Amino acid sequence: MSELKKDKAFLTSLIRERKTVLTIGLDTDTSKLPSIVKADILAFNKAIIDATRTDCVAYKPNFAFYEALGTKGWDILHETIAYIGDHHFIIADAKRGDIGNTSAMYAEAVYNQMGCDAITVNPYMGEDCVTPFYQDGKWVIILALTSNMGSTDFQQITLTSGQKLYQKVMQTSSAWGHAGNTMFVIGATHPNDIKDCRNAFPNHFLLIPGVGAQGGDLDAICAAGLNSDGGLLINASRSILYAGKGSDFAEKAQQEAHRLNQILQPHLISKMNLS
Amino acid sequence: MSELKKDKAFLTSLIRERKTVLTIGLDTDTSKLPSIVKADILAFNKAIIDATRTDCVAYKPNFAFYEALGTKGWDILHETIAYIGDHHFIIADAKRGDIGNTSAMYAEAVYNQMGCDAITVNPYMGEDCVTPFYQDGKWVIILALTSNMGSTDFQQITLTSGQKLYQKVMQTSSAWGHAGNTMFVIGATHPNDIKDCRNAFPNHFLLIPGVGAQGGDLDAICAAGLNSDGGLLINASRSILYAGKGSDFAEKAQQEAHRLNQILQPHLISKMNLS
Repeated sequence: MSELKKDKAFLTSLIRERKTVLTIGLDTDTSKLPSIVKADILAFNKAIIDATRTDCVAYKPNFAFYEALGTKGWDILHETIAYIGDHHFIIADAKRGDIGNTSAMYAEAVYNQMGCDAITVNPYMGEDCVTPFYQDGKWVIILALTSNMGSTDFQQITLTSGQKLYQKVMQTSSAWGHAGNTMFVIGATHPNDIKDCRNAFPNHFLLIPGVGAQGGDLDAICAAGLNSDGGLLINASRSILYAGKGSDFAEKAQQEAHRLNQILQPHLISKMNLS
Repeated sequence: MSELKKDKAFLTSLIRERKTVLTIGLDTDTSKLPSIVKADILAFNKAIIDATRTDCVAYKPNFAFYEALGTKGWDILHETIAYIGDHHFIIADAKRGDIGNTSAMYAEAVYNQMGCDAITVNPYMGEDCVTPFYQDGKWVIILALTSNMGSTDFQQITLTSGQKLYQKVMQTSSAWGHAGNTMFVIGATHPNDIKDCRNAFPNHFLLIPGVGAQGGDLDAICAAGLNSDGGLLINASRSILYAGKGSDFAEKAQQEAHRLNQILQPHLISKMNLS
């Protein structure tokens, strides 16, 4: 495993170089693979990565899709992450969080066994569940306001303070780390909230899932959330992975990444003062 | 994998037969194993299981401790669960929860790949993240009020309704299932809240972690939470697993289980009208 620490300067330099904040979610589902890869998930992932390396700054493997395959899946996940290498930011989309000694074990799994740079963490259990994920050179990505329907059930409840729960989560958890090791998840389906979060946390990166299959609007997200460092990681999964079903699936995935980047680039050039 | 469905009647019959609600958490930590097992986690788990089979109704493997070992750990977890067999309730302590298609993958991993009967689920992301875990004959164990310090950060916040967040979580999520397929986690460190939850949900099982190493009081928990079905699963992990460090570690684990059961039994005999 590489000793490279992927800090904020690394992330911003990738964004400047590639003129994108695109993150590709590796939610690889055996039942959706093109027939040409013959259910070989690792071969599929490698083809997608080869086709999109210069079109994204991060990959986000979704652990559930590999765990569903049992031990074999755990091996595929490990090999996929190793194949990505040192020129991308690698996010374990694992939504972990438990009491301290247990979160420390999840951190060991995700950082040391798997070699990821960051992990998505569920804040419901509070500070001592999240802090074990703060390790040298690693990032904690705290679920704030997710992209799904169920975000109304609890995250958007109004507290006696007048804040919504997810705003309280951001306020409280922002004190556990800093803008150089903490990001927040805000779903693409909530562009107004992305704007409010950017105002409240001008320097934090926000991870934005829910583009593509889930329907978020890229222009609105960029206008609301980009800052001079980039400040966003915008994730697309299904719309890229399954853009094509034929033997040209990787080319179709690349075309979809290009299409998204054509929308993103003018915003980045303007906000980051790129040439 | 067995086709046996471990419903509420199964659980209550185990409790009546063994006169205990003890659940043993298999949070097996390589760094704490007695030297005699030579870091062989599977051998350790089998010895603990053999020594405690008749002294508990459930085992609760904590997935983090196996994931921390990489692919090998996933194999050990699978073999441990298979070794437990059909005469116990098996809880995947995995604290999962994500958008619907992802939770469905976690359910596949935990139920079909691993053969567990139940999973601990984090409710922060709401209904569509929890419902994929409701599958025929399986149980969803929703985090309500956890045993750790961080439970004050968000779970115990007061809402405009006057409820605490964890009470709102229980009220809302109780509509997603029923007392035959849903349990709630309430930490042993909150006996007054266990009583309130029992009053609000007379028929639901409550999973109570935090006994032993974390300091919860067994008599208070039993008085607050037992019902005529049993109604509690009281978990101890470290205090049993690491009761002894020598070659008699399994015997010491059994002695600790017996000690806990001597406290539990009079309460069970009284509340369940056992002879």
